[in-house]
Amino acid sequence: MNDSTSHDIDQACQLAAAAADTFAASTAAQRATLLRGLATALEGARDTLVPLADAESHLGPARLNGELDRTCFQLRGFADQVEAGAHQAFSEDAAVAGAPPAGRPRLARARVAVGPVAMFAASNFPFAFSVLGGDTASALAAGCPVVIKAHPGHPQLSRATFALATAMVSVLGLPEGTLQMVQGAGIDVGVALVRHPAIEAVAFTGSVKGGVALQREANARVRPVPFYGELGSINPVLALPAALAANGPALATALAGSITLGCGQFCTSPGLVIVQDDAASQAFVQQLGEALAAARPHAMLHDGIRANFEAGAARVQGHEGVHTHVAGDEDAATPQPRLFATDAATFIASETLHEEVFGPSALVVTTNSFDESLAVLRAVQGSLTVTLWGADADTPDNRRLVRAAQGISGRVLFAGVPTGVAVTAAQQHGGPWPSSTQAFSTSVGYAAMERFLRPVALQDAPQWLVDAKGQA
Amino acid sequence: MNDSTSHDIDQACQLAAAAADTFAASTAAQRATLLRGLATALEGARDTLVPLADAESHLGPARLNGELDRTCFQLRGFADQVEAGAHQAFSEDAAVAGAPPAGRPRLARARVAVGPVAMFAASNFPFAFSVLGGDTASALAAGCPVVIKAHPGHPQLSRATFALATAMVSVLGLPEGTLQMVQGAGIDVGVALVRHPAIEAVAFTGSVKGGVALQREANARVRPVPFYGELGSINPVLALPAALAANGPALATALAGSITLGCGQFCTSPGLVIVQDDAASQAFVQQLGEALAAARPHAMLHDGIRANFEAGAARVQGHEGVHTHVAGDEDAATPQPRLFATDAATFIASETLHEEVFGPSALVVTTNSFDESLAVLRAVQGSLTVTLWGADADTPDNRRLVRAAQGISGRVLFAGVPTGVAVTAAQQHGGPWPSSTQAFSTSVGYAAMERFLRPVALQDAPQWLVDAKGQA
Repeated sequence: MNDSTSHDIDQACQLAAAAADTFAASTAAQRATLLRGLATALEGARDTLVPLADAESHLGPARLNGELDRTCFQLRGFADQVEAGAHQAFSEDAAVAGAPPAGRPRLARARVAVGPVAMFAASNFPFAFSVLGGDTASALAAGCPVVIKAHPGHPQLSRATFALATAMVSVLGLPEGTLQMVQGAGIDVGVALVRHPAIEAVAFTGSVKGGVALQREANARVRPVPFYGELGSINPVLALPAALAANGPALATALAGSITLGCGQFCTSPGLVIVQDDAASQAFVQQLGEALAAARPHAMLHDGIRANFEAGAARVQGHEGVHTHVAGDEDAATPQPRLFATDAATFIASETLHEEVFGPSALVVTTNSFDESLAVLRAVQGSLTVTLWGADADTPDNRRLVRAAQGISGRVLFAGVPTGVAVTAAQQHGGPWPSSTQAFSTSVGYAAMERFLRPVALQDAPQWLVDAKGQA
Repeated sequence: MNDSTSHDIDQACQLAAAAADTFAASTAAQRATLLRGLATALEGARDTLVPLADAESHLGPARLNGELDRTCFQLRGFADQVEAGAHQAFSEDAAVAGAPPAGRPRLARARVAVGPVAMFAASNFPFAFSVLGGDTASALAAGCPVVIKAHPGHPQLSRATFALATAMVSVLGLPEGTLQMVQGAGIDVGVALVRHPAIEAVAFTGSVKGGVALQREANARVRPVPFYGELGSINPVLALPAALAANGPALATALAGSITLGCGQFCTSPGLVIVQDDAASQAFVQQLGEALAAARPHAMLHDGIRANFEAGAARVQGHEGVHTHVAGDEDAATPQPRLFATDAATFIASETLHEEVFGPSALVVTTNSFDESLAVLRAVQGSLTVTLWGADADTPDNRRLVRAAQGISGRVLFAGVPTGVAVTAAQQHGGPWPSSTQAFSTSVGYAAMERFLRPVALQDAPQWLVDAKGQA
């Protein structure tokens, strides 16, 4: 595919800017119809889109059909939210007579669509985090035009999906600028997009390196704009002894499945396992290793990701104090899962071991006590998720563990595995750096809309504007 | 006063970190008691604190007594909010049986205190935006320890206020690290504070230059943290012809009062007045000029601010296409108000004229049409407020005006003047860059707490944690 020229990018952004007021003023019914129409169009083209996606991503039809379902569910979920008025949070404070500070004018708090959003598609979810994925759905629900930066990993799928979307925008009589798309294999197209003065916010899912580079551009603008980046995460799983004693084999199987799911190319893929040394944890690690050694994940998204995986695994393997539990063959046709092991002190002291290895690899840290496990967890910088097995009882130690888990992550699980992110109102997909650039926001779930709705107070506003919840 | 040493800063941050878990786990009653206790202590020391503040700021006892009242009102308001549970927003989604995407685990969305907050006091509000001002009150309400960076403009007042606060913290048996203070005249102390790894968020009120420098430090940390900066704002007032025809003289008087209030040292001081050329607007500008020429504001906060004011006013005065309507004497003992005038094209083309002149100065832009007034408004980068006079009727033009005002600001007023910021739940004190570094947050009003409460999803959480709304 040809990279978009600077003229193409400018035109896309200008069209989005021209559409912004009209689309912000669209009714809930119009937005819901668009979102549902996009879901219907995706489903209707399933037999074309899934093979395209498979050819470009190697993720396999089963996973890709499920991902398409998820994408449609998400679009329809945002439609429901908009119809329920979730995008129009509005509160009023009546005037109070008298002098300040108690006396005050009539004030209302509305939320307004922020304007054109630049949306960077991810490679690892060619439907759910791409052209019509959660970022696009939430921005449209908020009333913001979207300029999509297609991911170069699936150009044909991106174009086919975008063609469906533009047809739907046109059929519904919405402005052409409601959805625009640019494409480019290098960083230049993305940089030009983030720098464009019409862009009011950026949503990004991808690597720490790419995210940091684009965030720097967003901050360096004459008028900096919010950069919502979802970057890297090691998703610790901390197992307390009782959980492994009671249920070790099943947990080992479940965890191996989570580590290898989608060839480990999930943002919530567990990369760190913390256990206390005892007979049950030794058996658990043994079982986990056997399950990983037997797993045969599919090919990775592209050769660059495979090369990065092998390099990352080699870095861990060669690290002092790290024992290789499952050694994959780096030259195998498809990537082979890895399992490494180390002790608490080695992990805590090493920056290298805190970094994500994107792919089917995990590091077990075996500790000598609860406090040491807690210290390992606290050494993690920031993560999308923390999973705690066996921390259900209300004890002082478990409370310390929960506080530590909350301190470094955006989602704490008490059962199951972190892969699989439910699309609900309560979901939080975003944690402290480097898992997100804005840990107070989420990129999955209905609160994702809030990233594109800026609060504005209205003082002594006329009644028509109050009745319209501040939407002029 | 002696600058805090790096050892002092480290100790303050370490104490705050040590207090974080305990204070986050404090009950609503404990926090409310602290906040009310601080208000009572401030009021009890009024006869000492107000003269100290006046000696250090020149703001005068009337204003300073009012500001102390506002600060106490704010502390008590946050106490009420905490008692009402406003800091513990919590939502739950029940589990749904079946496969994803519809099937899902039980999820709850809680908010957790982010941890130690670095709070940079401002010079222009020695009570309300200083040691125990809105940033401190909202962080304490959220359950976060605060490390205060005292403003060097009022060191004695800062120390006296902090002494009251530490005594209250001690009396209530709260950890010493709940409130800490560091001080320093240069940027070094602030930089060291922002860089400290224990700091989890920064709240800042001050200049664009200082804010940008500190924001850069917050972003450059190994683990970047949110930087909530409230920087500069020109607060446009746009008057439509009918408003001036109906009520010009009263509006001119009110506006002159707002421009000169506190010697123009308010973040919401109006610096730009947009009128359409007609007889009424000419009379209005004439009256505004007369009122400003007759005003005699008190001395500015310190000599540096005065020098900056005179330099800023001189820059506007010497700008091509700008007419000086009220020329103050730059050598007068106290600053003399200025009024400048220009046309739409000159304003729109000039970056200089878009910058805030901190002090009692305003620029009138006279336009030839509604559309030209709208274009002038749209040329403003970002502002805390926009005031629209005469835009109450529900017309297409007024809707365009409201959308433009919402697009560049965080508060739109339809009557009155922008100085005076009510402390309510609906308030929004923060707009697009450069008025704020995080336009989605507010530094005044009860929503200010949200800056320090990070969402965390809890998946399949035990009931005790759900019952505690996620507070472990």
